[in-house]
Amino acid sequence: MLGFVLNTHQQWLCRQLSDAGYSVTRQIAIEDSGPAIQQAVRESLSRADFIIVTGGLGPTSDDITRDLIASLLGKRLHKNAAIAAKLEAFFAQRNRPMPANTLLQAMVPEDALILDNAHGTAPGLAMEVTPNPFRPDGKTSWLVMLPGPPRELKPMFATHALPLLQKHFPLESAYSCLTLRTTGIGESQVEDEISGLLQPLVDDGLIIGYCAHYGWVDVRLVARGHNAEQLVKEGEQMVRSKLHQYIYGTQDEQLHEVIVRLLTERKQTIVTAESCTGGFIANRLTDVSGASAVFLGGVVTYSNEAKQNLLGVKAETLATHGAVSEPVVREMAEGARKRLGADFAIATTGIAGPTGGTPTKPVGTVFIALATPSHTFVINPTNRYDRPTFKIITCQQALELLRRNLLHTSS
Amino acid sequence: MLGFVLNTHQQWLCRQLSDAGYSVTRQIAIEDSGPAIQQAVRESLSRADFIIVTGGLGPTSDDITRDLIASLLGKRLHKNAAIAAKLEAFFAQRNRPMPANTLLQAMVPEDALILDNAHGTAPGLAMEVTPNPFRPDGKTSWLVMLPGPPRELKPMFATHALPLLQKHFPLESAYSCLTLRTTGIGESQVEDEISGLLQPLVDDGLIIGYCAHYGWVDVRLVARGHNAEQLVKEGEQMVRSKLHQYIYGTQDEQLHEVIVRLLTERKQTIVTAESCTGGFIANRLTDVSGASAVFLGGVVTYSNEAKQNLLGVKAETLATHGAVSEPVVREMAEGARKRLGADFAIATTGIAGPTGGTPTKPVGTVFIALATPSHTFVINPTNRYDRPTFKIITCQQALELLRRNLLHTSS
Repeated sequence: MLGFVLNTHQQWLCRQLSDAGYSVTRQIAIEDSGPAIQQAVRESLSRADFIIVTGGLGPTSDDITRDLIASLLGKRLHKNAAIAAKLEAFFAQRNRPMPANTLLQAMVPEDALILDNAHGTAPGLAMEVTPNPFRPDGKTSWLVMLPGPPRELKPMFATHALPLLQKHFPLESAYSCLTLRTTGIGESQVEDEISGLLQPLVDDGLIIGYCAHYGWVDVRLVARGHNAEQLVKEGEQMVRSKLHQYIYGTQDEQLHEVIVRLLTERKQTIVTAESCTGGFIANRLTDVSGASAVFLGGVVTYSNEAKQNLLGVKAETLATHGAVSEPVVREMAEGARKRLGADFAIATTGIAGPTGGTPTKPVGTVFIALATPSHTFVINPTNRYDRPTFKIITCQQALELLRRNLLHTSS
Repeated sequence: MLGFVLNTHQQWLCRQLSDAGYSVTRQIAIEDSGPAIQQAVRESLSRADFIIVTGGLGPTSDDITRDLIASLLGKRLHKNAAIAAKLEAFFAQRNRPMPANTLLQAMVPEDALILDNAHGTAPGLAMEVTPNPFRPDGKTSWLVMLPGPPRELKPMFATHALPLLQKHFPLESAYSCLTLRTTGIGESQVEDEISGLLQPLVDDGLIIGYCAHYGWVDVRLVARGHNAEQLVKEGEQMVRSKLHQYIYGTQDEQLHEVIVRLLTERKQTIVTAESCTGGFIANRLTDVSGASAVFLGGVVTYSNEAKQNLLGVKAETLATHGAVSEPVVREMAEGARKRLGADFAIATTGIAGPTGGTPTKPVGTVFIALATPSHTFVINPTNRYDRPTFKIITCQQALELLRRNLLHTSS
């Protein structure tokens, strides 16, 4: 609780659970002390059917969750021979002596289910608390303990925790949900476009959620009951009929993933020529595994010299129009496309701020170019945000310019 | 609680409070419903001296926190004329009609302090709950409500909430804390190096914390009491004596900020030539406002052709040694330095994975070069991580290679 680590578990777990039709009512983070942990678990057992606890299952002295919960529930710990053997094998394989504390991870509360950890040494644990001494009516709760490291927690949640939840607390009725991701349109405009049209479905039980992010807006369609799937499907058709050109993906797809996928399908290539985005576009494209099949390379030209040397932008164009201008961004994109031999090139130049603005070109001024085999397109948005947001928004606009062009041309 | 938004408030607020000497005992996120909000506030009032609530103060129908808390505490709301006038002026200035709901933000619970919002329309509120009906002993708690948007919350916390906390709950004794940031050394090695040496200070009350991140390890020194400052100062000297070369900054400084600062002071320039890091290094450097004074540009060469065309890497070198090799990374760095006319160039080539590994060059193989006016240095770490972590770690190693070189040479 010192604020050095961002709690990304919360978001990830909430998302997984809500996509599966469950509602998360409370998320608690507590200081790493025995009384605080026991108090939080006691309170959770008093109010929830299913409780997920993360972290504190490892072998070091601050990994005390397992012991504290067993003690809260009056359960003894016993050494599990199979886990112990697995731990010994882990260290033997790596030719490393096993620290004495390691075997703590083999201690299991009586009656607990063991959740196999395919990516680490600490197993997860699941306990059915029945009767539940902390609930007025004694109603059963399940308590699931998962390891803290994301690469251990995520697969264990999917393989063990979610199926356990679905087995013991099946949804009362059918459930369906879909997220449609849009870009290039604001949240309130999205709502204006579709809310009237969807009203009959809402009257039948469809729930529409809007969530604005930097650079995109999610539309989430949710329904429960016997006609859940049909409602969501009809909702999707209506949203697509209105917002067709703005929708770039579904569920968790990101725009740079869509670009890499589309170009891979079409066997086409892309290069980047970035000034104000400073490498952000190239970085995002290369976050996608397999990007090397379509992304040949890029340049970041923060100086006029770099624009001239690497892209062949003319000194005269720079002198006449300035680095932040339509003629320069056009020469950047066309220069990058030719020099790197790609089908497409994206170029950006602008004033990210907070300094560098002028009366005629204030902070937020941006020129974005897309050079294609047949034509070069330039757009000129104004993106007045803080510096990191400026980069995100400008990148999104550049990728969207390419996506729309890809959709309107055959490969 | 649908998992679409990452809760960054929690980390930020915890960090601010712990740096000021206060301990955060609990953080709760709840579903957006009246009973859940009231229940969480009631529980918090039963256990804490100072409670910060964020969000739900705006003008739309889901902004219900203000009303719910007033009702929980049995306080009436009345319209504050000054806030109402400010709201009216806000819309008049922008020539926009004021939506009727906007005036909800002028409704203030009786006895509440109003915290001015310099960056938005919704004011913050602070209420002294005394006697506190939810605490067995009736002990006073303070309840502070801050707006949700970070650019409104952060300044209001610093200007109003923290001073209020310090006024009503002054620290019982002096407090001092310092974070030293290291890179190029593992968490357990950091601990091995310094824990014995610092033991006498720990016996006197110094608290040492270690926090490992991807690419760096923080050492946090904390002390309370009349000799707090002295203990932290002596601790810092000892840590520096042992870890001098690994320490790149203090508090929240990041390595790319340090690089831009050092180069700016020395009036020297840098360029990048990235293969496996795919623009990540350029992107980080250009996250720093003012980077354009030292960062001239960079290239991302994901294809052999780009390495040849943009950097002048020889076809023969690529054919003989392969793209992931010491001779190639050397030519990349030297080519970038010459072509872009900079003092320094950083180059990376490697296999980020998850595909592309070979028996002799497995996933995680990296070559990093630093070209300086007098010499080119190459290091060859193995970074076996998932793809995004691979980029972070490799970038950190490249920047650290430059930082150490800068420290060992005069400008």
